[in-house]
Amino acid sequence: MEPSDGRLSRGARSRKAITRRAVDIASLDGLDGISFGRLADELGISKAGIQTLFRTKERLQLATVDEALAVFLAAVIVPASSVPEGAQRIRALVEHWLEYAAAPLLPGGCFWAANLPDFDSRPGPVRDALADQRRAWLAVLERELTVAVEQGEIAPLDTELGAFQIYAVLNAANIALRLGDTESVSMVHRLVDTLLTPPR
Amino acid sequence: MEPSDGRLSRGARSRKAITRRAVDIASLDGLDGISFGRLADELGISKAGIQTLFRTKERLQLATVDEALAVFLAAVIVPASSVPEGAQRIRALVEHWLEYAAAPLLPGGCFWAANLPDFDSRPGPVRDALADQRRAWLAVLERELTVAVEQGEIAPLDTELGAFQIYAVLNAANIALRLGDTESVSMVHRLVDTLLTPPR
Repeated sequence: MEPSDGRLSRGARSRKAITRRAVDIASLDGLDGISFGRLADELGISKAGIQTLFRTKERLQLATVDEALAVFLAAVIVPASSVPEGAQRIRALVEHWLEYAAAPLLPGGCFWAANLPDFDSRPGPVRDALADQRRAWLAVLERELTVAVEQGEIAPLDTELGAFQIYAVLNAANIALRLGDTESVSMVHRLVDTLLTPPR
Repeated sequence: MEPSDGRLSRGARSRKAITRRAVDIASLDGLDGISFGRLADELGISKAGIQTLFRTKERLQLATVDEALAVFLAAVIVPASSVPEGAQRIRALVEHWLEYAAAPLLPGGCFWAANLPDFDSRPGPVRDALADQRRAWLAVLERELTVAVEQGEIAPLDTELGAFQIYAVLNAANIALRLGDTESVSMVHRLVDTLLTPPR
């Protein structure tokens, strides 16, 4: 007999609650900081139950990476999608990103900034998933810069480089913010203003 | 009685060998990956001897951060200092930085990129030392951009922003390189070319 809808949806809710907590832990202590035991302790549920849902630590890490993407989409991509494409959307993406990287959404700041440096030298499915997400984010930024140029909103520029610069400066600001250097937010805005210069 | 010169210099050599290995470990696994036991195993020396030299894990981490700075100075700052100040020195700093971040100098790439994300949310002397070194590196870049403008080599620009951009893009390239994205080196060069545009 198939499990009832009630059982399925309870399973999905548990899964979501566990991976959401795992995203918080990983933003602070990295994906290696996640364990069945720690999640069981923090959530007050049984370790055996978590193991049944995820089976291996690697699957738990991959589910955590998926959940981090869901958090990022909800916090940054979805709110910006109601703003017209091009220059305005780039500004919206950047503002929502800065809010996303600031507490209290994620206790340790950007999830990828916390985890890519740990996994970049460790080939495997976790690294591949993190790298794919990084590429997708760069592609979003590049696309909006291209649209801004095509719409005549901004002066022509190297859109691939522009996207890489925004991505790089946001990551640097994420670390600077955690070090108490609030000047870095102004740096992000100054870069965006420079890139989004109207054509003469 | 004071220890003989021979004993002092043997102590200094051991200290150097231990912290140099600790820098390699920390570039790959972070400063939390360092322990008296692991260093003793890897170097084939006694754990008690290492404990006598450093006493606490935090002092060992701080000595490792100092040694990382020595590695960085020798690999990046010193070789670039023979090149004239201004635009040429910026290009030399960037080239040496890219070599420094690539294997085999440090197995996990840039030491600060590997460790700042772990320590940025953890106040204390290790975080302070990492943050001071980060600020000093930004100051070096900003100073050389200022000299380049003053010497009339490049068009006037926001030197604080320019330094932050170079720093941010080098860090992003460090991660991209470890993910196998070699395009990022070209991105660094394109950014430097953009910033170092001669005055019209």
